[in-house]
Amino acid sequence: MPHDLTRLHGVVPPVVTPLTDDYKVDFPSFTRVIEHLIKGGVHGLFFLGSTSEVTFHDEATRRAILEHAVKVVNGRLPVLAGVVDPATDRVIGHAVSARKIGVDGVVVTAPFYTRTSQAETIDHFRAIRAAAGIPLVAYDIPVCVHIKLDRDTVATLAHEGTVVGLKDSSGDDGNLRAVIGDLAGKAWAMTGSELLVDCAMLMGAAGAVPGLGNVDPAGYVRLYDAAKRGDWDAARREQIRLCRLFEMVRAGLPRTSVGAAGVGSFKTAMKALGIIDRNTMARPQRTLNDEETATVLRFVREAGIL
Amino acid sequence: MPHDLTRLHGVVPPVVTPLTDDYKVDFPSFTRVIEHLIKGGVHGLFFLGSTSEVTFHDEATRRAILEHAVKVVNGRLPVLAGVVDPATDRVIGHAVSARKIGVDGVVVTAPFYTRTSQAETIDHFRAIRAAAGIPLVAYDIPVCVHIKLDRDTVATLAHEGTVVGLKDSSGDDGNLRAVIGDLAGKAWAMTGSELLVDCAMLMGAAGAVPGLGNVDPAGYVRLYDAAKRGDWDAARREQIRLCRLFEMVRAGLPRTSVGAAGVGSFKTAMKALGIIDRNTMARPQRTLNDEETATVLRFVREAGIL
Amino acid sequence: MPHDLTRLHGVVPPVVTPLTDDYKVDFPSFTRVIEHLIKGGVHGLFFLGSTSEVTFHDEATRRAILEHAVKVVNGRLPVLAGVVDPATDRVIGHAVSARKIGVDGVVVTAPFYTRTSQAETIDHFRAIRAAAGIPLVAYDIPVCVHIKLDRDTVATLAHEGTVVGLKDSSGDDGNLRAVIGDLAGKAWAMTGSELLVDCAMLMGAAGAVPGLGNVDPAGYVRLYDAAKRGDWDAARREQIRLCRLFEMVRAGLPRTSVGAAGVGSFKTAMKALGIIDRNTMARPQRTLNDEETATVLRFVREAGIL
Amino acid sequence: MPHDLTRLHGVVPPVVTPLTDDYKVDFPSFTRVIEHLIKGGVHGLFFLGSTSEVTFHDEATRRAILEHAVKVVNGRLPVLAGVVDPATDRVIGHAVSARKIGVDGVVVTAPFYTRTSQAETIDHFRAIRAAAGIPLVAYDIPVCVHIKLDRDTVATLAHEGTVVGLKDSSGDDGNLRAVIGDLAGKAWAMTGSELLVDCAMLMGAAGAVPGLGNVDPAGYVRLYDAAKRGDWDAARREQIRLCRLFEMVRAGLPRTSVGAAGVGSFKTAMKALGIIDRNTMARPQRTLNDEETATVLRFVREAGIL
Repeated sequence: MPHDLTRLHGVVPPVVTPLTDDYKVDFPSFTRVIEHLIKGGVHGLFFLGSTSEVTFHDEATRRAILEHAVKVVNGRLPVLAGVVDPATDRVIGHAVSARKIGVDGVVVTAPFYTRTSQAETIDHFRAIRAAAGIPLVAYDIPVCVHIKLDRDTVATLAHEGTVVGLKDSSGDDGNLRAVIGDLAGKAWAMTGSELLVDCAMLMGAAGAVPGLGNVDPAGYVRLYDAAKRGDWDAARREQIRLCRLFEMVRAGLPRTSVGAAGVGSFKTAMKALGIIDRNTMARPQRTLNDEETATVLRFVREAGIL
Repeated sequence: MPHDLTRLHGVVPPVVTPLTDDYKVDFPSFTRVIEHLIKGGVHGLFFLGSTSEVTFHDEATRRAILEHAVKVVNGRLPVLAGVVDPATDRVIGHAVSARKIGVDGVVVTAPFYTRTSQAETIDHFRAIRAAAGIPLVAYDIPVCVHIKLDRDTVATLAHEGTVVGLKDSSGDDGNLRAVIGDLAGKAWAMTGSELLVDCAMLMGAAGAVPGLGNVDPAGYVRLYDAAKRGDWDAARREQIRLCRLFEMVRAGLPRTSVGAAGVGSFKTAMKALGIIDRNTMARPQRTLNDEETATVLRFVREAGIL
Repeated sequence: MPHDLTRLHGVVPPVVTPLTDDYKVDFPSFTRVIEHLIKGGVHGLFFLGSTSEVTFHDEATRRAILEHAVKVVNGRLPVLAGVVDPATDRVIGHAVSARKIGVDGVVVTAPFYTRTSQAETIDHFRAIRAAAGIPLVAYDIPVCVHIKLDRDTVATLAHEGTVVGLKDSSGDDGNLRAVIGDLAGKAWAMTGSELLVDCAMLMGAAGAVPGLGNVDPAGYVRLYDAAKRGDWDAARREQIRLCRLFEMVRAGLPRTSVGAAGVGSFKTAMKALGIIDRNTMARPQRTLNDEETATVLRFVREAGIL
Repeated sequence: MPHDLTRLHGVVPPVVTPLTDDYKVDFPSFTRVIEHLIKGGVHGLFFLGSTSEVTFHDEATRRAILEHAVKVVNGRLPVLAGVVDPATDRVIGHAVSARKIGVDGVVVTAPFYTRTSQAETIDHFRAIRAAAGIPLVAYDIPVCVHIKLDRDTVATLAHEGTVVGLKDSSGDDGNLRAVIGDLAGKAWAMTGSELLVDCAMLMGAAGAVPGLGNVDPAGYVRLYDAAKRGDWDAARREQIRLCRLFEMVRAGLPRTSVGAAGVGSFKTAMKALGIIDRNTMARPQRTLNDEETATVLRFVREAGIL
């Protein structure tokens, strides 16, 4: 029986995809990632998000990732699947495939590469909803798709029932607050920020989708729990500790790109924690080297999780 | 025997992909497009470029498009294939497939959705070149991928032999001129502009890849020929006529997006010319309506091609 | 005796500049604005910020505004003066003038129109600090100057003593949190957001510089006080009321520009509240018309301040 | 008797402003710059453009620059004056001052720092035209003001007689070509590009406003003359020589900003040519150092002008 996505809340990490040296999915490591996250107490799992390097994976690889994930999770938690590709019919293809595999909902961005309008973007979500037969979450990530989901676009999609929630990775928290007001409980919103989870909870967010949650899921769960019980001082303290840990994302700069430095540092930390075997990044991204790994480890140690 | 892509020149239109009402490829119309272009005197054909709505097509559809194209062209002209997807291994997949189908070269953009550096972008081209076993053309289109191929990136790739040419759709013609100087004949450059072909030829470009060439290939061929023989007044006159025809791209605005308005107007004109059966755009783009079609037809008539 | 700017905190509104019908400063209205804010309990006053339409005023007008402001405030509160112009020596001119008039500190942006680097921007602040002989506050407002003060730039300027604080209007609250950590108490940070004051306080900000504070200073003071005493539920409730009031900024759109719509709605509300005589905006900005004014009034009434 | 600006054409360099070590105008050097340009055969002179570091100069300095320039030129050539500041009334102040000093026309950008709409921008030009009593030239320079003059904005201003011409530094040459078509002879357009003067002439531009013209005015005049007589091969050859000379603008990178590297290299070359005494840049820009100067000199020598 599927989980009810309209009630999703809490910490829902965008799960990293461990790779082998020849850029294939390392499934044994992947299993350990999933168990590590469930053991950390998270409330859901988001596969094939940006942190998973989703757009580096072709159709067959994505199916294999989801099949493995659904099998390992085995209904213990709600499972979201990113269906990230440039345009409507390809996204429908991914969404239908994900539904058949048994995920609880799919996460949909605006089109990219092409230059669509807000009106066409609304049509995009509606067409996917109609064709996919599975709950949709809107994924606002202008740094990747280079179009922002307008406040009115999100309100329209939520109030007509096209989407059940919003993952906001826009970095525009003033707008997020306005959106949460607009949603009026018709749909939930989660922040994609690692650094502002206490703030997002204060604003009324339902939870967070933090990439750093791959490294320290229990920390984010403590933060979430503190916020839920109104202990804002405890939430803030935990958030500050996690902010310091997040400094690891700068270790690879400027030798690697911003994208590779962030997810690359998560993988590097997870390798150090014994969760995955390699910190390999999908091509053409550069993998963190020994010196950069040492920097990451310093932050991991200072955060008290090694 | 394949065509030698190092000597490619002239007018190489990015071929549109006609669609049926349910968003499938309309192959009979597609055949007519190809014959129309060959009859127009063009020097090569670029399939699966941005004008083809390439990023809307999944892997199977792209293969079907190329197989059909290669069969219809049957060696009469050099055939380029766009291999446009976010990251390296997926592009390699498309490139290997295209090589097996029998194209003469593939056209590669920088990664997108992900945020790579110039150094990682160079690695991207190198990895594809090594794996694909087929000549590469660099495709600079920052309006879609949101990273510009730096002048030094292009020079590096050309001088080491990773790419044989550049399709420049960057809109930065000052930089294009500097790039042409840098290339020093080691690789060619073509402009993706519809409006500046005479200028690009004056700068030393090898030719043009104009989307509007789908509508009026013979006009662009006349323009190219005039420039080649140094008759700049004739080239300019033809260019100005084509600039007026290009005004059709505004017909769909602002009801459709910029992307849909441009290619949509080309399809609408080609339908009016009897070349294709429908002007349908891939989802979620809006197709030009009757009123917008009337505007397009006015420009087509004024250009003397109807 | 000047106020000690290193200890500035609380609500420090960027004071609007009321204008006459022929675009001159309406000094009687201006006096009433200042008294309204002081009566509202604010902790400081920031004249010649972006909300004051500072860049519309020439050198003589700016001096007249500051002279009037300093005379009316008469030491009751700390006074900050914006010294906003494109480059170093002009800013020094404004800063020296402001110091002579008797303000407590000046607020400095990165250079604009010109395209400076972060290193040159650091030199800009240092040169002004050396020449002006008055405390400096860094003003991060990339939406206007189109360069972001890098996190490391702010840390450098604060730790060496060039600036005593930061007004952050960057909209990048993840970065603001990192900056507050970097500052480590060596300098304060205030948010320029109207919508995230509770969050900023939770992050450790010293206060806020909200344009909407011109309309409802007492509301922002209640919000600040609640946050200071750790009553986050009260802070949040007040913030949500102010977020609803802030909706007024959309009243003028799209007839006016974004800039004119925001400050224009503040002036329109203040006129309705009897504080200023006209809602005239500096040229070429459009002033809100009757219909837009009615929309603004609806929000003012719903917020319970009329 | 003033020159008729509606007939302006040819090479109109944006004149650099030589500075002393303490950032004041070096008037003896400035006189030599003007004589150097007139001797080079240019068709007009544009003072207080971006290349002059106009936004670094306060009101009094700008007046002194124009008074000196008008006195030295003494009617020998048309004189344009930039009136670049963020908003309408300040620009009117500069324009009235420039008219009284005796320039033939003023060059006006869109507002900056503030965020105006296209409609407000049109009002901006109209208000200045009405108040200044002197011909206006529109200056499209989005890289500095961060708003592009829309094609329809330029057409409106030209056809109603608000502006007599356009200086296009937008870098969008496809749009420039469309604009030239729209203008239909009602107003002229000149390119601000150093690299595309032959192309701009082929498109129908009236001339060029090249910063590099400060260094090699005679070269640009030869280029212009060749294009005017239809000798496109000669125009292209001269353009290519000037493109190579333009490579000097990279000498200061990345130690200086892009802005400082460009104008800084012009000043450095002019110092080497004995025209000005120092290559000092206005603060906070960095001045080219000895090593960078050596690089500039190499390009100057290779261009055959030393």
